[in-house]
Amino acid sequence: MLKLYYSPGSCALASHIVLEEAGADYETARIDFGSEEQRSAEFLAVNPKGRVPALVTDRGILSETPAILLFLAQSFPQAGLAPLDDAFATAQLQAFNSYLCSTVHVAHAHGGRGHRWADDQSSFDDMKRKVPETVRACFELIESEMFEGPWVLGESYSLCDPYLYTITRWLERDSIDVATLPKTHAHMQRIEARPAVQKVLADHFG
Amino acid sequence: MLKLYYSPGSCALASHIVLEEAGADYETARIDFGSEEQRSAEFLAVNPKGRVPALVTDRGILSETPAILLFLAQSFPQAGLAPLDDAFATAQLQAFNSYLCSTVHVAHAHGGRGHRWADDQSSFDDMKRKVPETVRACFELIESEMFEGPWVLGESYSLCDPYLYTITRWLERDSIDVATLPKTHAHMQRIEARPAVQKVLADHFG
Repeated sequence: MLKLYYSPGSCALASHIVLEEAGADYETARIDFGSEEQRSAEFLAVNPKGRVPALVTDRGILSETPAILLFLAQSFPQAGLAPLDDAFATAQLQAFNSYLCSTVHVAHAHGGRGHRWADDQSSFDDMKRKVPETVRACFELIESEMFEGPWVLGESYSLCDPYLYTITRWLERDSIDVATLPKTHAHMQRIEARPAVQKVLADHFG
Repeated sequence: MLKLYYSPGSCALASHIVLEEAGADYETARIDFGSEEQRSAEFLAVNPKGRVPALVTDRGILSETPAILLFLAQSFPQAGLAPLDDAFATAQLQAFNSYLCSTVHVAHAHGGRGHRWADDQSSFDDMKRKVPETVRACFELIESEMFEGPWVLGESYSLCDPYLYTITRWLERDSIDVATLPKTHAHMQRIEARPAVQKVLADHFG
């Protein structure tokens, strides 16, 4: 059985929603970031990166959201979560998710995890001040250039949607009012109407 | 015909090598970062992100290295650059490349592009000082946990190899002696013996 290690509201939310949307048989294990459980010897034996998500499969462990999501779409093709028979469309999906992980998530992370890239408190404060500007620029680019509507890739709900939603949920912490990003705001409301999403949110925050 | 926008030695090197290894019919266009050509209206019309690589295909433009590489492997399956018939093995490949783009490339970028995430010179200096530590930690994790040998995924050369090599080439600028990373060093020498790699290097630096 698949087993997802996650912490509530982290980027592992995307993998959790996709497991639910796919109808997968899975279990979860909650990692407590408050007590730094992700750095514990027990969890590092699962994922040496000390990060979530980590997905245990019968072949071994997977990490990195874009890889986990594509694996789930390929493992549960009947769920129709990726245009797997079209290499170009799949590449557009992967390009979107790669942008989220390497640019948008990274921009957000400078608000609370500046210690990853610097040592001085003044640098952390400087980074944190800039987050609303950098994250907003990412979302404006998504709205102007990438978001097809009503879902990210157009008419079909895909792996891009729960991942975008996961990062959209961080906007408030980034001092950005989602209502100022109209496509993102409508997308958030649209995806929160899905039963699979409600079920996972109840687990993370209920 | 495929057309790759690149700048010499940038992360676009990985896509360039894979085009060559795949035996693709392609052309290239060099973007001059020195004159900020990536911010020109002409290039932004190609890739609104203002970054390379950008790959023009007959279906549209692709960006983001992990997406471009997988698209090329799927478009030229006879080149055997990814274990496409094995979803778990493909996910491991994508997880490796996702780590390179979202963690290793990002760690490196704090050396010269701190202005992406902060505003003060003192922050840029702080970030730059930390790069040897953060990039080394990434490569040590790659060597201890991810690198199978002789190629990244084991016996078969794959999309992971030119991408790892591309970032390995930045170690000197990050004040890290590649000789102190034995698996990485041997990998660099192994991949530089490949004719496709030599041909692309001659184009970038010849």
